[in-house]
Amino acid sequence: MRTIEWDYPKNQLKMIDQRLLPGELVVVSMTDYRQVVTAIKDMVVRGAPAIGAAAAFGLALAALRSAETTSEGLRADLNKAMQDLQAARPTAVNLAWALRRVMTKAGEFHEDIYALKQTILQEAQTIADEDVQVNKQMAEFGAELIDDGDTVIHHCNTGALATVDWGTALGVIRTAFEQGKRVHVLVDETRPRLQGARLTAWELEQYGIPYEIITDNAAGYFISSGKVNKVLFGGDRMAANGDVANKIGTYMLALAAYQHNIPVYTVVPTSTVDLSIAHGGLIPIEERPEEEVLNLEIEGKSIFPEGARARNPAFDVTPYRFLTAIVTEKGIVYPPFDINLTQVCIQKL
Amino acid sequence: MRTIEWDYPKNQLKMIDQRLLPGELVVVSMTDYRQVVTAIKDMVVRGAPAIGAAAAFGLALAALRSAETTSEGLRADLNKAMQDLQAARPTAVNLAWALRRVMTKAGEFHEDIYALKQTILQEAQTIADEDVQVNKQMAEFGAELIDDGDTVIHHCNTGALATVDWGTALGVIRTAFEQGKRVHVLVDETRPRLQGARLTAWELEQYGIPYEIITDNAAGYFISSGKVNKVLFGGDRMAANGDVANKIGTYMLALAAYQHNIPVYTVVPTSTVDLSIAHGGLIPIEERPEEEVLNLEIEGKSIFPEGARARNPAFDVTPYRFLTAIVTEKGIVYPPFDINLTQVCIQKL
Repeated sequence: MRTIEWDYPKNQLKMIDQRLLPGELVVVSMTDYRQVVTAIKDMVVRGAPAIGAAAAFGLALAALRSAETTSEGLRADLNKAMQDLQAARPTAVNLAWALRRVMTKAGEFHEDIYALKQTILQEAQTIADEDVQVNKQMAEFGAELIDDGDTVIHHCNTGALATVDWGTALGVIRTAFEQGKRVHVLVDETRPRLQGARLTAWELEQYGIPYEIITDNAAGYFISSGKVNKVLFGGDRMAANGDVANKIGTYMLALAAYQHNIPVYTVVPTSTVDLSIAHGGLIPIEERPEEEVLNLEIEGKSIFPEGARARNPAFDVTPYRFLTAIVTEKGIVYPPFDINLTQVCIQKL
Repeated sequence: MRTIEWDYPKNQLKMIDQRLLPGELVVVSMTDYRQVVTAIKDMVVRGAPAIGAAAAFGLALAALRSAETTSEGLRADLNKAMQDLQAARPTAVNLAWALRRVMTKAGEFHEDIYALKQTILQEAQTIADEDVQVNKQMAEFGAELIDDGDTVIHHCNTGALATVDWGTALGVIRTAFEQGKRVHVLVDETRPRLQGARLTAWELEQYGIPYEIITDNAAGYFISSGKVNKVLFGGDRMAANGDVANKIGTYMLALAAYQHNIPVYTVVPTSTVDLSIAHGGLIPIEERPEEEVLNLEIEGKSIFPEGARARNPAFDVTPYRFLTAIVTEKGIVYPPFDINLTQVCIQKL
């Protein structure tokens, strides 16, 4: 199944509860958009493209469950839902992008409230379907950058689980592998929520792609030892100049690779590019609860002293100059990013 | 008590089992040097200076327990013990330095085998006592580099637990704090063994020094946000040019600080400097068992998929050019390190 999909007979939203992987594969069903808000906040669903699709389906739930009988009343309900969904997580722009896209569709004239609800659901479904196509297209472009025998470092999870299906950066690795290229993945475990160790490793196990997990802080060792050919990651929001906010730790990883002239590729759909933001310093960075850092155990015991406090920024910004290229569904974008990125984003497919 | 100390009436070696902290403070006693070998390998005791003292006392145990009746026979036993202790961990040079120092003392002429054994124990005790003095001296020098109101990032554990007492980099922070300077420590949790989250946080709790734990990969976020004034860490082996092997993750931390013109200080006794090695590329880097990466749990459950493999390099090398200064017990060493470091190391106190 897809990470997130609509259950048509039941008109429910189904998604994999990613907090329980790799131990258990549990699919949860949602009937109320507020469940989607909580799922995004609590990271039942995560990954910028998956969050976008989830939010779009969240609006569909709000529409279908609305008791309003006029399209005006329905639009008021939708506005409320949009605001709640929008506030669930601040950094990934795909959330806002998907909401805006559905709301634009909803803004088109409809006398028939039933038709309006169907239009909204249809648009959410289109967003989800397009995400899969977009990922496969990015993977085709990106796979050209991977050479037979490459060892790549990959940060966080950007696979099928981070999207509706297939993946962004991990999708590139997957397509290169399916093309017969030998590729070895060093999987950054990605503290604090360990999406690399939990989700990326789990996906790679299933695809049969060779990998080894490393602690995030060991990437510099492997890079400076000359054992790494490429660094790949996704993105949660990219500014117009190419600066990219991505999972915490991306900055240090990209910096180390840049320092050693190792190519750094970020794989992002154009829906992740926020042309309204000039540079990365303007991207809001979410700080999450300290419990996410402090809940580690070894052999059933907490490893932290009593009273310990922690800080937990969820993202950092990698400046465009560390990036070798940006892989999008419209092609590979090379520097100067400030010109080329805008050009690619505004061009029709 | 000290992290490691000799129990005189019983002629046993006592040390804090650092694997059980911060949950339990357990002191273990050792009567056989092979227990010391295992304790060093398993990281019951860790930290370059503490390992050095432990190894020296290990030789004392080998001497006292030897059944040989001639000084020649005793020296053969000592040689065997030295080789075993030496092989326990490869990176920290203090181990070899302390063993060499005791063996040199043992090599001096002694007809009386009892006197020889006492000389060996005495030399081990001197090494331990000197370590405390050396740390306090480094802390005095280093505290001058800390300004009132500083936020510093500290990597791994370099406190009392990493030494016989007081600490190296954490000793500097401690002395600055005792001088009345306000200092806030961002504690790198230091995957995979989490010496920062477990040991440094525990020490700081006891000293009353304000701190927050961060994941290692978040250091770049805080550094690039302009919230960090200094970066401090210790060292396990420093080459003659100033390149320093230290706990995995130090390289990426120092690189990020260097990139943002934030001062980077390493605090190492001259016993950590290995003038026989020209540059850091020649320092052997220990790779430890993958279980140390794969034993994490959250809520009692492993977070890794079945079949997951990991790599676990325990150290990396930070090039001298990222270092602002090296704090030693003989003073603060500034660039050019290749000249100044040798000069400081060969000078008598």
